[in-house]
Amino acid sequence: MTSIAASPAIKFLKQPTTEAWVDRAIAHLDTILLDHSHCERKAAGVALNLMFRYPSYDKLVRQLTAIAREELEHFELVNQWLERRGIALAALPAPPYGASLNAHIRRQEPERLLDALLVSALIEARSHERLGLLAQHCPDAELATFYRTLMASEARHYGTYWVLANTYCDPSAVAERLEALSVIESDILSTPHPEPRIHS
Amino acid sequence: MTSIAASPAIKFLKQPTTEAWVDRAIAHLDTILLDHSHCERKAAGVALNLMFRYPSYDKLVRQLTAIAREELEHFELVNQWLERRGIALAALPAPPYGASLNAHIRRQEPERLLDALLVSALIEARSHERLGLLAQHCPDAELATFYRTLMASEARHYGTYWVLANTYCDPSAVAERLEALSVIESDILSTPHPEPRIHS
Repeated sequence: MTSIAASPAIKFLKQPTTEAWVDRAIAHLDTILLDHSHCERKAAGVALNLMFRYPSYDKLVRQLTAIAREELEHFELVNQWLERRGIALAALPAPPYGASLNAHIRRQEPERLLDALLVSALIEARSHERLGLLAQHCPDAELATFYRTLMASEARHYGTYWVLANTYCDPSAVAERLEALSVIESDILSTPHPEPRIHS
Repeated sequence: MTSIAASPAIKFLKQPTTEAWVDRAIAHLDTILLDHSHCERKAAGVALNLMFRYPSYDKLVRQLTAIAREELEHFELVNQWLERRGIALAALPAPPYGASLNAHIRRQEPERLLDALLVSALIEARSHERLGLLAQHCPDAELATFYRTLMASEARHYGTYWVLANTYCDPSAVAERLEALSVIESDILSTPHPEPRIHS
């Protein structure tokens, strides 16, 4: 159960996703699609919240606007897949992943901005990895193609968050904090969540 | 100062905007543009928050996703105007309009949803009216055209919020509450805010 899924190593991620996650996700694709819908909406919300908090940070505002728009477009596309498969929109309890990561965002500036950008970078990196695994293992060829198109965006997004961190914060502080947070991110996922989720 | 600006009456609005507002806005177009940028971002945030709160309301989620995407597109367009005029992105204290209206959203469901949808409908209706006035009176022909293109979207948005209210709530309750809230909305604006704002 600890063997790793056959995916290329993703920069930022300390530990690759296990085959056990892939097997559970493929066995519960409908739940994964519904959870994915929530993830896209939440990602748009995170970008928008950062735009609210730092309204005068020109580069941040412009780049996160583009990300928020793209996440909402993905939200619509995932919802079209839900409709196609007859899955009703519904609330779905979130796994502890997001809240556990957010608990490591320090409260004082400038650490707060640095940590928020790096937590988003890590979530996008993990999403990129896992959508890639879904693309690789999904038995529905059309859905696999859909996952492949989305994973490219997630890769751009984690790059954007990382570049923003290096724009507004000292690069050596970014590197050091990314190292610490990436260990925490992999550690959170080392205890598998019992429900099938994108970030379980 | 109480004479009304020459605009067609907008459904939902009890009192039309005064000429005094138009004069102040045209005299402070740079501030109005910066405030407008904040308004578009806030409008996207309101739509997204409603999508978060009612994740299983299919029609609401789909229609507010489209609105949120469009508001973010407008946010980008307004920011391009700011850049063109050499106005830096910056925080700007909000007028009391939004908070005063939100204070009338009741806390219990289903009243909370009804009130939230109608408050958004009223804000969009007022934005529609005022962008129309800017289109009519703006001395910069290109900026006037820009306002004209945006006001059409605001009109669609207030229609969408009103239709959603009638989808999820009893139409007679919608009509009665809209009547009450539209009186409140005009009343809030009857005390002009000293700073030039879209909703001052």
